[in-house]
Amino acid sequence: MRFVFRQGLNAVKKLSIVDDAFLRIESRRQPFHIGMLMLFEPGMDTPVNFIEKLVQKLKSSTEASEPFNRQLVTKRGIQYWKEDTDFDITQQFAHISLPKPGRIRELLEFVSRVHSSHLDRAYPLWRLYLIEGLEDGRFAVFLKFHHSMMDGVAGLRVMVNAMSGDIRESENLPAFWQSRVDKSEAHRLPSLKPFAVNLKSLRSLPKQSFQFIKPLYRDVNRSILDYLKSNPNAVFFGQAPRSIFNQKVSASRRYAAQSYSTARMRAIAQRLDATLNDVVLALCGSALRIYLKDRNELPDTPLVAAIPVSIREQGDNSLNNEVAFTLTHLGTHIADPVRRLQSIKNCMDYNKKNLRELSPGQTLASAVMKLVPGAVNAVLGLKPDNALASICISHVPGPREALYWQGARLSGLYPVSLVTDTGAVNITIISRHDYVDFGIIACSKTVPSMQRLIDYLEDGLIELEQALLPPSVDGFSAELHDPERSLVTGKVERKDVCFEEITD
Amino acid sequence: MRFVFRQGLNAVKKLSIVDDAFLRIESRRQPFHIGMLMLFEPGMDTPVNFIEKLVQKLKSSTEASEPFNRQLVTKRGIQYWKEDTDFDITQQFAHISLPKPGRIRELLEFVSRVHSSHLDRAYPLWRLYLIEGLEDGRFAVFLKFHHSMMDGVAGLRVMVNAMSGDIRESENLPAFWQSRVDKSEAHRLPSLKPFAVNLKSLRSLPKQSFQFIKPLYRDVNRSILDYLKSNPNAVFFGQAPRSIFNQKVSASRRYAAQSYSTARMRAIAQRLDATLNDVVLALCGSALRIYLKDRNELPDTPLVAAIPVSIREQGDNSLNNEVAFTLTHLGTHIADPVRRLQSIKNCMDYNKKNLRELSPGQTLASAVMKLVPGAVNAVLGLKPDNALASICISHVPGPREALYWQGARLSGLYPVSLVTDTGAVNITIISRHDYVDFGIIACSKTVPSMQRLIDYLEDGLIELEQALLPPSVDGFSAELHDPERSLVTGKVERKDVCFEEITD
Repeated sequence: MRFVFRQGLNAVKKLSIVDDAFLRIESRRQPFHIGMLMLFEPGMDTPVNFIEKLVQKLKSSTEASEPFNRQLVTKRGIQYWKEDTDFDITQQFAHISLPKPGRIRELLEFVSRVHSSHLDRAYPLWRLYLIEGLEDGRFAVFLKFHHSMMDGVAGLRVMVNAMSGDIRESENLPAFWQSRVDKSEAHRLPSLKPFAVNLKSLRSLPKQSFQFIKPLYRDVNRSILDYLKSNPNAVFFGQAPRSIFNQKVSASRRYAAQSYSTARMRAIAQRLDATLNDVVLALCGSALRIYLKDRNELPDTPLVAAIPVSIREQGDNSLNNEVAFTLTHLGTHIADPVRRLQSIKNCMDYNKKNLRELSPGQTLASAVMKLVPGAVNAVLGLKPDNALASICISHVPGPREALYWQGARLSGLYPVSLVTDTGAVNITIISRHDYVDFGIIACSKTVPSMQRLIDYLEDGLIELEQALLPPSVDGFSAELHDPERSLVTGKVERKDVCFEEITD
Repeated sequence: MRFVFRQGLNAVKKLSIVDDAFLRIESRRQPFHIGMLMLFEPGMDTPVNFIEKLVQKLKSSTEASEPFNRQLVTKRGIQYWKEDTDFDITQQFAHISLPKPGRIRELLEFVSRVHSSHLDRAYPLWRLYLIEGLEDGRFAVFLKFHHSMMDGVAGLRVMVNAMSGDIRESENLPAFWQSRVDKSEAHRLPSLKPFAVNLKSLRSLPKQSFQFIKPLYRDVNRSILDYLKSNPNAVFFGQAPRSIFNQKVSASRRYAAQSYSTARMRAIAQRLDATLNDVVLALCGSALRIYLKDRNELPDTPLVAAIPVSIREQGDNSLNNEVAFTLTHLGTHIADPVRRLQSIKNCMDYNKKNLRELSPGQTLASAVMKLVPGAVNAVLGLKPDNALASICISHVPGPREALYWQGARLSGLYPVSLVTDTGAVNITIISRHDYVDFGIIACSKTVPSMQRLIDYLEDGLIELEQALLPPSVDGFSAELHDPERSLVTGKVERKDVCFEEITD
């Protein structure tokens, strides 16, 4: 491919180390794109030709903002972004319809198939699908984008930015790929706690070596001592028991999603002085425990989750990739749901205490140093039955108010992440003001019937409610238990037909 | 992946050299699967839940025949087929619906997208889509399969075998992937003229060396002499002028298809004592000429087409890959349509005369030897402006009678081939008793607005009719010209909305 290096607005830009790595580790069985599935509910007075007009609007939105206008070019083996001056909307946007009966099941099957195929590097690395044909009158949007273009947090920010809290205003907003993120718009998403500084700060690392290394040394040293003292809260990469999730993956994916009431989860958190995130992790732990137990595959020692933490500085609205990790066990060895949640909370509290003393750059360095035991094991073959981590679980704070897109209310915002070779399942969560939206992606071959995890999440929630919350007057914790609120669809009957037999 | 070598029915089988090559040359931008798009017209008395019941039937068809049950396994770098004992119908079969308005355009957009993504090597290398939502009440089936599993001729044979000339009988036939090809069923497809013997005969090549080499030497020697005497009928690989079709391709494909009346094309062939195949090639030549002329990209010397010829022996109904090539120029340097057709006919007659003297193995060897000038050019950089061939055009004889599948009449049978790096467009044709079905696949990036080729094919047909056929009583060759018969859809209006603005 020939191209001319131009100056000014159209200048080419070298990829960051992380963006570049996301492209280079991509392989046939390990595509490295992520996505976002959004459900929208048109209002009562929506005209019949609403979708037709929306498709027209999107098809004629033939200009794209940064980073949707970025195209990859390679010169002498080095990868650059340049502006795509030949933007082809037919490549980037697709309008599709679900087959009858148009249940959530058909939607998730579609997303599973589409998320399994690679993006073409000759075009901007994203595609947006407008999906009609859901039996309940809603429609869906699925945006798929390469991780090198932006991370999930940035993707969420762009999506939310194309929406409005005002229904009328939302009708006049441009297409998602024309949405511009500026600081004035950032209020709709809660600021992420700045666990760590931007990657750029690593460049000045030698200068600040002593100040940098001292707390880092303290953290790692303490963790090692705690680990040697068998403190369950000190978790390292390479400590996870090898499970069926740590196998070579196929190129095919299966996706499942569900929403649970934020109020239900907060009520549980309050009873144990835990955070919403602790409850989210506990539900993941119990779902994975039930799934593995069912298959007689539950390891004796607890599964370990790698938890991405943002290293963006507060107020940093850049759309780059900014990711470091912390680690927690998931209490999968503990049968009692409350004890399981408490032990996860303890581990996360321990992590937070340690991370609080660290600058963002140190957080990244700490994560890297916690890789050392795993690397040593791998090289020396000390613990062949161990895996780096069992699973990656990511929880991203979402919008805190009702949002509208083109006049339709947002009723679900499900992250679609990626799996890696030997990391065959990933759970990503977006918490909104009213619902916590879970998205689970897995290799369809190594994690059979993965959609059952959705039911097991609910089982875990009910188990915690039964153990912690007093029954209400007219029966067992009826208000919190309202099944209508825990469903993706908002209708009680639907759940039964959504997930139960996708692979059966 | 671990597997046990088993004996008997489930034994593993080493891939043939060709099958193996088709997997190894596959790359990110060059997937190596092919396909078949079929249109079906349900009868007048079809019940409303016809599609629903058909989907149920297909979803419950969870056993597959050879080669649909084959799974790829690799052991010490060598690839084997083994039976997939974990056959997952949800991976192999998908039911989808087209978005409104459900024109052929939406169908072709869907096929274009789906044909761009790779098949997962962890599963049998095929997927079948049942596609509803066409506005005219028809439905479509798209079968996508890896070229290593079978070639297009074998694929066609399997498909036709799952159909019947009897509408009632067709209702009771099993799913395509359960269709068995046996010799008694072969009558529905005309036998291919055995240009060459099976590849196996190559193994005994040294033994028969003299008898083998003599006619081969005569053929190649004569071709070289003719070429040096500037005989336009002697065509070699590497002689083609480099055109926009000979560029590095993207990973994205665009597919277009159309049917033309067999009677119209036969009438032209008769006037010039040419074959249907000569007319097919002439139409391809004129379409490519108009397309390139429109873009100011028409080379002075004629484009060269590589034409796959079958090297199956007569009566060989095996489903392996059996492919050799012959070469023809496409007369794209000739403005007059009749002279263009005649010059292509001359070239094909020359080829046939030479090939008739060759055994099938010699045909293959002859094709290989005709690669030599191209290879020499490439290595020595003698003719940097030349390409191996401009395009691959394949014409496969299809069924000679009306066929039915599950009670619905087959109304279109379009081959979907593949493009290779530097071979950005491919035209494949299946001729049936009533229609000749053209399927064109191209890289969407290097061959912009390729769907115009469909219109240009028709322009070429009309041009030949105007030059060769006398006008009828009530106006210009009205009977043959009946536009209704030349359309994919069977309705006059449809064509205008099918193809004209897919990328505009």
